[in-house]
Amino acid sequence: MTTTPFETTFDVRFYETDGLGHVGNTVHVGWLEAARDPVFKLFLPDLDLSRWPLILASYKVDFLQQIYYGKSATVKTWIGRLGGSSFDVYQEIWQDDKHCATGTTTMVHFNYETQKSAPIPDDIRAKMEQHLKD
Amino acid sequence: MTTTPFETTFDVRFYETDGLGHVGNTVHVGWLEAARDPVFKLFLPDLDLSRWPLILASYKVDFLQQIYYGKSATVKTWIGRLGGSSFDVYQEIWQDDKHCATGTTTMVHFNYETQKSAPIPDDIRAKMEQHLKD
Amino acid sequence: MTTTPFETTFDVRFYETDGLGHVGNTVHVGWLEAARDPVFKLFLPDLDLSRWPLILASYKVDFLQQIYYGKSATVKTWIGRLGGSSFDVYQEIWQDDKHCATGTTTMVHFNYETQKSAPIPDDIRAKMEQHLKD
Amino acid sequence: MTTTPFETTFDVRFYETDGLGHVGNTVHVGWLEAARDPVFKLFLPDLDLSRWPLILASYKVDFLQQIYYGKSATVKTWIGRLGGSSFDVYQEIWQDDKHCATGTTTMVHFNYETQKSAPIPDDIRAKMEQHLKD
Repeated sequence: MTTTPFETTFDVRFYETDGLGHVGNTVHVGWLEAARDPVFKLFLPDLDLSRWPLILASYKVDFLQQIYYGKSATVKTWIGRLGGSSFDVYQEIWQDDKHCATGTTTMVHFNYETQKSAPIPDDIRAKMEQHLKD
Repeated sequence: MTTTPFETTFDVRFYETDGLGHVGNTVHVGWLEAARDPVFKLFLPDLDLSRWPLILASYKVDFLQQIYYGKSATVKTWIGRLGGSSFDVYQEIWQDDKHCATGTTTMVHFNYETQKSAPIPDDIRAKMEQHLKD
Repeated sequence: MTTTPFETTFDVRFYETDGLGHVGNTVHVGWLEAARDPVFKLFLPDLDLSRWPLILASYKVDFLQQIYYGKSATVKTWIGRLGGSSFDVYQEIWQDDKHCATGTTTMVHFNYETQKSAPIPDDIRAKMEQHLKD
Repeated sequence: MTTTPFETTFDVRFYETDGLGHVGNTVHVGWLEAARDPVFKLFLPDLDLSRWPLILASYKVDFLQQIYYGKSATVKTWIGRLGGSSFDVYQEIWQDDKHCATGTTTMVHFNYETQKSAPIPDDIRAKMEQHLKD
């Protein structure tokens, strides 16, 4: 079975460049977070911050190519691993048909009232499986 | 004559919210800058940072309504004043049919080699006039 | 009577530069906000976000000199105008003994429960007067 | 032999919080980068962007505790691994005597003219060894 990623495309912003003339390496995590919106919506369709159901445990970003201002960039987002209450989001940043960076983010389904992790409900799990990275 | 603004629409990013639950007030100037790209392109179609022809003299932002995550926002961009070498960009940020903030930015056409301001060329001026705020 | 500003000094951060090699113009408002902490503390000594008593109505920044990475910068913060419930914060950013930018921010003492502005209490007003710009 | 980290302490900035009331998870990489300044200075004492000698290959951040506005945070920075031309920087973020996050960043000594990695010079290597994580 082939699965499809979520895709988010946006223009690089001037202020996202740094003094070396390319997109600064602190910017990528913000893009990756923004491109996880479709995953967040599986858990919380209205994205209401007062009922936020996830916490972030870690992220790792590998930098492959420089990214430049003046063009758009696209983030492709897959579910990279699907555990009982935690999961990894695997993401790639592309510009000009070049794979520029890879991000892997570990998130946990979390109940802020009980301060405990919570199993991923079956209906959400089924939707996540449609975007599971091969 | 009625003139039309440039329009830029984008999703609010999670990290652009602050601890008060809305978009933080330091975020707006980045959005306004990003939405000036069509103005920058009148001067420099390829947006090549090594030949950047403008400097920013000042900006003012008025905050009218809170802006929230989970929805898109739109920036409308007009030329607010057109001088010999300087000009004002007048911009409005909208969300949910509400006018949320207004920005006025003064920019100067600038020659970095001579370190002097430079007259706005006639062909660029003609294009700017098509987006002049009434 | 001479009044003294609040002073905040910090190192410029690499990611605060932009592709033109200097500190990007969207960074200044974050610095100015950070340097208003001593003003915020007059209203709310513990800076508890759940009881935040101020809203921001507008800011204006004038850019006088470029600011560079590799050195510290200092923000000097005065009360620029002291009204009944609103006030202006006047701030200057300095680097290398050069006055690089000026910011004026209008804030309002605000009661989020009643959603109304509230008079500045006398004891806070007295402390603010000690930092009033001549 | 016991080695000592570089230490960088700063106040958390209001705009670094996000809508969940704590420091947003995209902020940490900027702090870690800022706290690598002492490492950058081993290679380039004046931090001149036009002669920048390093590239970033990857970073990983583990989130252990929430970080809040209204208090300072400290980053402790060690050399985590010292290879021929590449090295890892190991960093910990602390607030209120709590270890809140860990970052590991892989950097490469790089010659932008030849576009090739370059061996770490012996004098710099000797200084780095003084901050090697046990």
